[in-house]
Amino acid sequence: MMTLHGYWRSSASYRVRIAFALKGVEVNHHAVNLRTGEQSKDTHLARNVQGYVPVLELEDGTQLTQSLAIMDYLDATYPEPRLMPPEPILRSKILAASLIIASDISPIQNLSVLKFIRAEHGQDDVGVTKWAAHWIAKGFKALELIAQAHETEFLMTDAPGFFECCLIPQAYNAKRFGVDMTQFPKLSAINAACLQRPEFEKARPENQLDAV
Amino acid sequence: MMTLHGYWRSSASYRVRIAFALKGVEVNHHAVNLRTGEQSKDTHLARNVQGYVPVLELEDGTQLTQSLAIMDYLDATYPEPRLMPPEPILRSKILAASLIIASDISPIQNLSVLKFIRAEHGQDDVGVTKWAAHWIAKGFKALELIAQAHETEFLMTDAPGFFECCLIPQAYNAKRFGVDMTQFPKLSAINAACLQRPEFEKARPENQLDAV
Repeated sequence: MMTLHGYWRSSASYRVRIAFALKGVEVNHHAVNLRTGEQSKDTHLARNVQGYVPVLELEDGTQLTQSLAIMDYLDATYPEPRLMPPEPILRSKILAASLIIASDISPIQNLSVLKFIRAEHGQDDVGVTKWAAHWIAKGFKALELIAQAHETEFLMTDAPGFFECCLIPQAYNAKRFGVDMTQFPKLSAINAACLQRPEFEKARPENQLDAV
Repeated sequence: MMTLHGYWRSSASYRVRIAFALKGVEVNHHAVNLRTGEQSKDTHLARNVQGYVPVLELEDGTQLTQSLAIMDYLDATYPEPRLMPPEPILRSKILAASLIIASDISPIQNLSVLKFIRAEHGQDDVGVTKWAAHWIAKGFKALELIAQAHETEFLMTDAPGFFECCLIPQAYNAKRFGVDMTQFPKLSAINAACLQRPEFEKARPENQLDAV
């Protein structure tokens, strides 16, 4: 069986857990404790030179990194149900929306960035929360407009897939940083519809063995 | 013909220009002047609610955003030469390396983030340069280790593709922010090999009509 090296509260790990659950593929979960700095030790750096989670270890020992690249691999090797539709335009649009989260929001409120602005820019808890909430709200404003332009129950499809793997962990983080989600009614509706499904329940941070 | 709305110095626009050149596909170039704030005007927001470049406008008026999603579309609709190999593991690894640039480096030194740390964290030119150089060097350190683990001339292939579309614009930005590239000999060798090719020459910022 494959092993997913992750952390309960890491939004990138959460994305991949949802993807596995949607595919109905079982995976071993191995926790890398980000609170104790386990990600910076040699054991983990041997899995991922970036020291980030998640890492998907295949049965032959191959290690895959970066949540979206892991999801791309899963979609190629376990085609049904699809995370991404095959039509090039729709696929590109869903990938673009996913990248608003995975590139334009999430990395900017990554733990290492928050540590940097505390240490180098003298930001306290208030400053850190303002920073994170700013980038989440900015990205979500764009995504809300995109979501409202489509009639589908999920972003652009009738079933959750690639984008929803990204949205639900980011909405979870938005809550942590006090972002008012009532500004984003369609995103909130997609989030609520996903959270009712057993695949998303299984992937929730609080339902992981390493949850504190 | 398709139209690419971009800006000469935008690294995300530069990525897509390289992709078009590698495919040998002609495209109209329309400049959106980021220095005068044209990206925040209604005309451009109608193309992309995020107000970012690039935007690829298809012949039927469909607008695609996010450079990696545009490259994914190009690879699906103009299959040869491939930007991405078809093998799921290799593809996932190249995508992961590309995401180190497109998610973990580039957005953190995006213009809007640099403006925010000036306005809200009181950072001056020195602070902004230190910030940008820090995240570029951090990502490049990881990428150099990945590159050194492969014998190929380019990252993991014998011809430039998806990853090199991301690397060369980021190396260009690294130079702007004073990052010492001699720390990264393999990345520098890939960069030099690419810059000798006519496709990369055509895509260079200085060779665009809107270059200042």
